[in-house]
Amino acid sequence: MTLEDLAHHMAAWLDGSGAHSDMVVSSRVRLARNLEAFPFVHRATEEQLSEIAAQALTAGEQSDVLEDASFFDTSHLSEILRQVLVERHLISPALARARRHRGILVERRERCSVMINEEDHLRIQTIQSGFEPQKAWELVDRMDDELSRSLDYAYSEQWGYLTACPTNVGTGLRASVLIHLPGLVLTQQKDAVLRGVTQVGLVARGFYGEGSQIVGNLFQISNQVTLGRNEQETIGHLEKVTRELIRYEEHAREQLIREARFQIEDKIWRALAILENARLLTSQEFMNLASAVRLGISMSVIQKPDIRLLNELMVTTQPSHLQQRAGEKLDPAERDVLRASLVRERLHRKDAEGGEKNKEKAG
Amino acid sequence: MTLEDLAHHMAAWLDGSGAHSDMVVSSRVRLARNLEAFPFVHRATEEQLSEIAAQALTAGEQSDVLEDASFFDTSHLSEILRQVLVERHLISPALARARRHRGILVERRERCSVMINEEDHLRIQTIQSGFEPQKAWELVDRMDDELSRSLDYAYSEQWGYLTACPTNVGTGLRASVLIHLPGLVLTQQKDAVLRGVTQVGLVARGFYGEGSQIVGNLFQISNQVTLGRNEQETIGHLEKVTRELIRYEEHAREQLIREARFQIEDKIWRALAILENARLLTSQEFMNLASAVRLGISMSVIQKPDIRLLNELMVTTQPSHLQQRAGEKLDPAERDVLRASLVRERLHRKDAEGGEKNKEKAG
Repeated sequence: MTLEDLAHHMAAWLDGSGAHSDMVVSSRVRLARNLEAFPFVHRATEEQLSEIAAQALTAGEQSDVLEDASFFDTSHLSEILRQVLVERHLISPALARARRHRGILVERRERCSVMINEEDHLRIQTIQSGFEPQKAWELVDRMDDELSRSLDYAYSEQWGYLTACPTNVGTGLRASVLIHLPGLVLTQQKDAVLRGVTQVGLVARGFYGEGSQIVGNLFQISNQVTLGRNEQETIGHLEKVTRELIRYEEHAREQLIREARFQIEDKIWRALAILENARLLTSQEFMNLASAVRLGISMSVIQKPDIRLLNELMVTTQPSHLQQRAGEKLDPAERDVLRASLVRERLHRKDAEGGEKNKEKAG
Repeated sequence: MTLEDLAHHMAAWLDGSGAHSDMVVSSRVRLARNLEAFPFVHRATEEQLSEIAAQALTAGEQSDVLEDASFFDTSHLSEILRQVLVERHLISPALARARRHRGILVERRERCSVMINEEDHLRIQTIQSGFEPQKAWELVDRMDDELSRSLDYAYSEQWGYLTACPTNVGTGLRASVLIHLPGLVLTQQKDAVLRGVTQVGLVARGFYGEGSQIVGNLFQISNQVTLGRNEQETIGHLEKVTRELIRYEEHAREQLIREARFQIEDKIWRALAILENARLLTSQEFMNLASAVRLGISMSVIQKPDIRLLNELMVTTQPSHLQQRAGEKLDPAERDVLRASLVRERLHRKDAEGGEKNKEKAG
């Protein structure tokens, strides 16, 4: 598999399957692991990094889960392709800096992957569509078991798995959900609810994780604690809090329909109409309009497009994906034209495929 | 004919016919006339006003042009119906104040009408679709001839026709065009061009004439001078200046396409999409979106809807028309819902009738 193949296929986690997938885009779990025999990445020599990568790849070849996976050394990739990987949530911006002996081992449908020599020697990760932290955990746990058969992890009886940054010591586990909370934003309950999330030891971030901005009313909720709580407890806690968030969001939407039905329906129909017709779209505007459309589908105000298509566009309309598609560097104005054209084409094609058009609802 | 009949039919001047009708909505001419035997309206007694109205109606009955016309005494109409007449440009806001013995004699298709006992005893007027001041003048002149057979006008050899307000003395003629100048607005040449219009003795006003705001980039251009210039000269001058305005506007549009093609196409497509899908529309927003759509049709960026439908909606989406349609008083929020629903219904119905959809143009 080449990276171009990857970029032209839709990742499995975008397919709109799984529980509550109208509200929870995806569930991710990753484990930080390091090899006993080597120093941490930031202290390792080029040779050691090369050896770590070699051992990780050999272990990967023996894993059933990673059977069809391919490895991409980020230092061999163009800048656009590295950013494509970031936009697909496969690698971190840090890994995209493209120093040698670093890269990503990734399964064809992108559910499972291993970042090699990022902050830790291995970051074993899985993304599932919808609200499925347990499923994601089981899969990552299985990968971890398979890899550990041929790798000696740095592990302390007292501390658990040892990691480059102390915030990951213990389980080395970070579990997160990407959740869409437009109701809480529109009813101005977002800040209060997210304060509650923080108080129970979780953290809310933007679409691209740490330090990233909130766009399109999408929040990434993840655990902070990796020490003193086992994996099953961590996953269970995230699930419980997410279920509460879903409930709060549902109440906010009921309130909107009760108190501002026309305003909310107007917002939804306009958003879809603009996506279907605009000739220029910034990525920020796309995310905001897509948020309104997602809300509309979730609330049954509109019947199309499907969540799967919205998810796909959320990834493929990003700057590097557009440039990869165009086969050249594009300035922001050129990207806005191409983004609008891609969105129109996909929404209209889907329309023709589906046959089903949005129907007027009785007043 | 009842006034309800009138309100449910489209006025002839909205039918999108005539020269340059994508840019010039309509051409109007009116003559101010007073009867020799009576004082001006503001000094006349109730009895005199009643007698003036009676004489005018008798004269109207003998006019071929006004053969099928009906008379509506504004003091007998509901407030909503009086405002419907204002919104149709048939009567002035002053006449809508509904004092007795005042009203409008109006032909079924609304091209020709006579306001009775407004500021002057008679205001003989005609509205034509498109850029047709000459045609409008010929028709109003014919009406005037027919009416003068049985009416004795106040006329002075030195001053010409005598009128209640000195600004109308002489020909008593006011000719105007309603012209759409979005190109001049977008390229910020509007103020300079309109200053030029003023310098040659014409005046630019909003959609509803004197004192009204500019909405939807529609400007009413009319003569100020009624003294020392005969009717044919006045009409000719308005035609000449309007032709120049058309040329300036065309240049501005060429500049827009050259310098901001994507921005302008984006604006047009979004405007149409919002009109077709919004659930709430204020009248101000409707006029602005309709302006972009009119520009789009005129520039062949889009092929539908036709100008006739836009013209129709420009009248029927106004507050009193909506309330007349609903059969009850509506608050502004209710009107916004009904306006959006009417616009959607008309645009979609037209779509189905025409069969022809807007097609993507090759990039």
